[in-house]
Amino acid sequence: MTYLEKLSAIRLLMKEKGIDGYIIPSSDPHISEYLPDYYKCIAWTSGFTGSAGTLAITQDFAGLWTDSRYFVQAKEQLEDSGFELVKLKVQHAPEYVTWLGEQLPTGATVAFDGNLASLAVANAVKSTLEPIGVKVNGHVDLLDPIWKGRPSLPTEQAYTLPISTTGQSTTEKIAAVRQVLKQKRATAHLISSLDDLAWLFNIRGTDVKCNPVTLGFAFINESKAILFIDAVKLSQEVKAELASHGVEIKGYTEVQDYLKTLTASDVILLDPKRTCFATYDSVAKGTSILEDINPSTMLKAIKNEVEINHQRKAMINDGVALTKFFKWIEENVASAELSEMSIADYLRDLRAEQPGFKDISFDTIAGYKDHGALPHYKAEPHSNYTLKPEGLLLVDSGGQYETGTTDITRVVSLGKLTQEEKEDYTITLKGTIEGSMAIYPKGTRGYQIDAITRRSIWATMRNYGHGTGHGVGFFLNVHEGPHVFNPTPTDIAIEVGMITSIEPGLYREGKHGIRIENLVLSKDLDTNQFGEFMDFETLTICYIATDLVDTSLLEKTHIEWLNNYNAWVYESLSPKLTQEEAIWLKDKTKAI
Amino acid sequence: MTYLEKLSAIRLLMKEKGIDGYIIPSSDPHISEYLPDYYKCIAWTSGFTGSAGTLAITQDFAGLWTDSRYFVQAKEQLEDSGFELVKLKVQHAPEYVTWLGEQLPTGATVAFDGNLASLAVANAVKSTLEPIGVKVNGHVDLLDPIWKGRPSLPTEQAYTLPISTTGQSTTEKIAAVRQVLKQKRATAHLISSLDDLAWLFNIRGTDVKCNPVTLGFAFINESKAILFIDAVKLSQEVKAELASHGVEIKGYTEVQDYLKTLTASDVILLDPKRTCFATYDSVAKGTSILEDINPSTMLKAIKNEVEINHQRKAMINDGVALTKFFKWIEENVASAELSEMSIADYLRDLRAEQPGFKDISFDTIAGYKDHGALPHYKAEPHSNYTLKPEGLLLVDSGGQYETGTTDITRVVSLGKLTQEEKEDYTITLKGTIEGSMAIYPKGTRGYQIDAITRRSIWATMRNYGHGTGHGVGFFLNVHEGPHVFNPTPTDIAIEVGMITSIEPGLYREGKHGIRIENLVLSKDLDTNQFGEFMDFETLTICYIATDLVDTSLLEKTHIEWLNNYNAWVYESLSPKLTQEEAIWLKDKTKAI
Repeated sequence: MTYLEKLSAIRLLMKEKGIDGYIIPSSDPHISEYLPDYYKCIAWTSGFTGSAGTLAITQDFAGLWTDSRYFVQAKEQLEDSGFELVKLKVQHAPEYVTWLGEQLPTGATVAFDGNLASLAVANAVKSTLEPIGVKVNGHVDLLDPIWKGRPSLPTEQAYTLPISTTGQSTTEKIAAVRQVLKQKRATAHLISSLDDLAWLFNIRGTDVKCNPVTLGFAFINESKAILFIDAVKLSQEVKAELASHGVEIKGYTEVQDYLKTLTASDVILLDPKRTCFATYDSVAKGTSILEDINPSTMLKAIKNEVEINHQRKAMINDGVALTKFFKWIEENVASAELSEMSIADYLRDLRAEQPGFKDISFDTIAGYKDHGALPHYKAEPHSNYTLKPEGLLLVDSGGQYETGTTDITRVVSLGKLTQEEKEDYTITLKGTIEGSMAIYPKGTRGYQIDAITRRSIWATMRNYGHGTGHGVGFFLNVHEGPHVFNPTPTDIAIEVGMITSIEPGLYREGKHGIRIENLVLSKDLDTNQFGEFMDFETLTICYIATDLVDTSLLEKTHIEWLNNYNAWVYESLSPKLTQEEAIWLKDKTKAI
Repeated sequence: MTYLEKLSAIRLLMKEKGIDGYIIPSSDPHISEYLPDYYKCIAWTSGFTGSAGTLAITQDFAGLWTDSRYFVQAKEQLEDSGFELVKLKVQHAPEYVTWLGEQLPTGATVAFDGNLASLAVANAVKSTLEPIGVKVNGHVDLLDPIWKGRPSLPTEQAYTLPISTTGQSTTEKIAAVRQVLKQKRATAHLISSLDDLAWLFNIRGTDVKCNPVTLGFAFINESKAILFIDAVKLSQEVKAELASHGVEIKGYTEVQDYLKTLTASDVILLDPKRTCFATYDSVAKGTSILEDINPSTMLKAIKNEVEINHQRKAMINDGVALTKFFKWIEENVASAELSEMSIADYLRDLRAEQPGFKDISFDTIAGYKDHGALPHYKAEPHSNYTLKPEGLLLVDSGGQYETGTTDITRVVSLGKLTQEEKEDYTITLKGTIEGSMAIYPKGTRGYQIDAITRRSIWATMRNYGHGTGHGVGFFLNVHEGPHVFNPTPTDIAIEVGMITSIEPGLYREGKHGIRIENLVLSKDLDTNQFGEFMDFETLTICYIATDLVDTSLLEKTHIEWLNNYNAWVYESLSPKLTQEEAIWLKDKTKAI
């Protein structure tokens, strides 16, 4: 079936069922960002493979709403699909709902599959459309009837992590969640999100590419802790380990029926952003639902000392791999044998040599020249550029180590440079430095760090369309909330122990892209009469190229920060490098 | 009755009526910030006279929840009242509701008077307490039965403004509101907020001190525009003027009965933050209620060219009054005859000499020495300091002119200075300058400007507990939304034509306070491939004292801004000053 044929088939089904608008969100029953193949509905329907977007279809129009990270990619991928790109003004905002409201008359019906939409998305759809007389049906799957050869759900083995890695046992974690439930007067709690589940049970898997999670649901009340999971994934040892923490096992597909057994005296806590509408709707009628963030999300975001110490070591290993990588690029670029795809593979190999390596943490973005301007570019055979000794190379990559998750972006010059490239690089770097140097009071929100990072970039009338940073899991998902550094008003305070990226960028379509990204740890700084103040410790250990810096655009404090950072990178990595590598790095990190 | 007797009487009534928690918000049926005496319930109950706070009472505890602006004042005023100060962690957050939820058992009842609480507050109370089994009753007034000699509602004359002042007729404004209603598919709209009402009907009054508004409600649908107002306030001319725009007049108290006449086919737009719960609850059952911001709030916030030009002129007049004022202070401080109260009176007199003066826009804050550390201090006979030739004087004041509303804070040194005072002053000034110099993309929110203004202050581990700035009306309320520059995540974009204050501060209890405040106008700057960028035009015209500046703490760009600003102040004001005044100002504004 071509994409146009699929769209026709969907529109025919819409007509048959009296549906005037159909929404296909990019998600699954776990509200995952990275999806198992079974749930890649947007890619199957439209060809768009980005990790964020929503399709909305009427008889007159079919569109993909996505954010500026994906504008160029979407435009290419949607060609001849019947879908048009609609550029989101605000990242993740449900602007397609407003659009449907404007298009459809009173009395129309909008539908979606409640397994693909979070409760929050379903609520946004309802609260926008129902008051203007548009009906909403969240139980319509139009894809399954026409999707021949749909992939099956994964059944990969899951495994548990020792307390020497996690710093906290499952028993302790369950107790911590129960304590929050008690405070909130909830008697029960369902976890759908896979990162929360992995953290709570100290369990990992390989069901989803790049994210070491396993598909399942967790139910917790005062006396029970149930893991709903396909039993074939669990060895006897893992079952015994879970049982030792009082965890009961039930089948993956039993969860909705189980929720029907709740009673009117139950108050179940569900996270509207991490629970799908179908799961929500299967809770027994009469049961009170308390919509709140998953307690584990906040507990998990605050890393303990064991995790932080592991993470610091993982950063050294990651930095060693990256140093070897950039040295190799520099020495081999003239051969004309390196390409975006081949260097991504080689970087994976270098990381795989490091202790505890499990996987990459997301598809490597190796964007050469104008491909660097696509913030979420992934080289494919048809797009794969060969590197030459000129222009800028952007590499955004990360590893999953048993002792931590990494995510780093660097830009290097492969040869000739333009003044515009140097200016964009220096202005981006100034943003990274100002964000990293920020001092902020307890209670500061991510949107404030975002503004502080952008200030000096805005001052030059430049900007970037993505967030400044995202939370990062501990050997878990590379994007983990609840905290985020972006312009949207997410009302979550930055707490001591959180790890977040700082990654401003500047993109010139058709020319080049810059992004300079480090992970930072939030720490206590000092307390005085004005309050408690915090700052960041930079965790990422990889040199920042100085040949691209135009020092006339920086102040003394920025140059000091850069020189101190590079000196620290050398100190941290050189003991693990060969002499030749250390000499090379010494040169890259010399003060400017 | 003493405050303790009042509290006992309230607790007795609570027992009689089975109420376990009673909330007294600081508001009225118009959700006003400045209240007519009739609605000053918190002052009557507890003695606290600040403009923001909430009382919550149980049998065991009675507290005032307020923000850091009022901590010192509240502590003083609540002495022996039976009420204890509870310090809000987040300004305006309903933390008392969380507290009630923690205190009260399942099955308890919390009550409040729905005339004093916005729908948003009522919803916050319900959504927090009802899920944990606490009942909420929003129709209980425990004060009226015990409030002997309660003041009556005001009946001052109202008057209309000519189009040469407002730049837009009432007919045009009503049409603009109707257009928004149509877009949102609302068939009806009730306005409770007095600033919206004043803007819509180009009407002003003197019912409330400092705010040139008149008490009333407005009802708009496709064919009708009704002003609910006490008819004695309107002259024949005003009635005729309103009638010429199709405005019908009904009695002030008829509004709730009128809302009962709506039908099931109506969709009424109500602003949950600007409508009281009692009004909301009087809408006929079956009528759809669309909760949204009042359309007039956004229309009013974007000033038209006529308003902006008037406002620029009002700033010159205000600056002339302020220049005379600070010169007079400097020349007379040694006499030991000036006090906080007397200088506030004199400043009012100087403003009153300026064309179009109507009133001050809020009670002047003249805080000498440690009184400057109380951000909303108002001198009273028992607290009134005599000025001496030493220490810092903070003056935060504003005027209501027929051609604009002003609000400005300056700090001057009356003599000897400490290094700490100079540092605090310079660091505050740096914040004001960085905020004023901000360049920001279209779509930027106030919380981003707030963060940009605070960044350099935070970098010194200093901070202030109030917002960075507030919207300002055009010859209307000195605090007008929807936009605001503060840390809370208010999702309102800054639009070209908005006027906002930038007023960072630093306060050392028992020592001194600094705040440096200008009003700024948001303007288009330029558009390039990175987007549309905006900046600020500073509107306030009054010299910023340079003898308090420690230039070693500023960068060159800050000093340039300051010198340019002061030079512009001199240029703008000197033609309206006497020669002697101009010479004095020349010296104050000389470059550093």
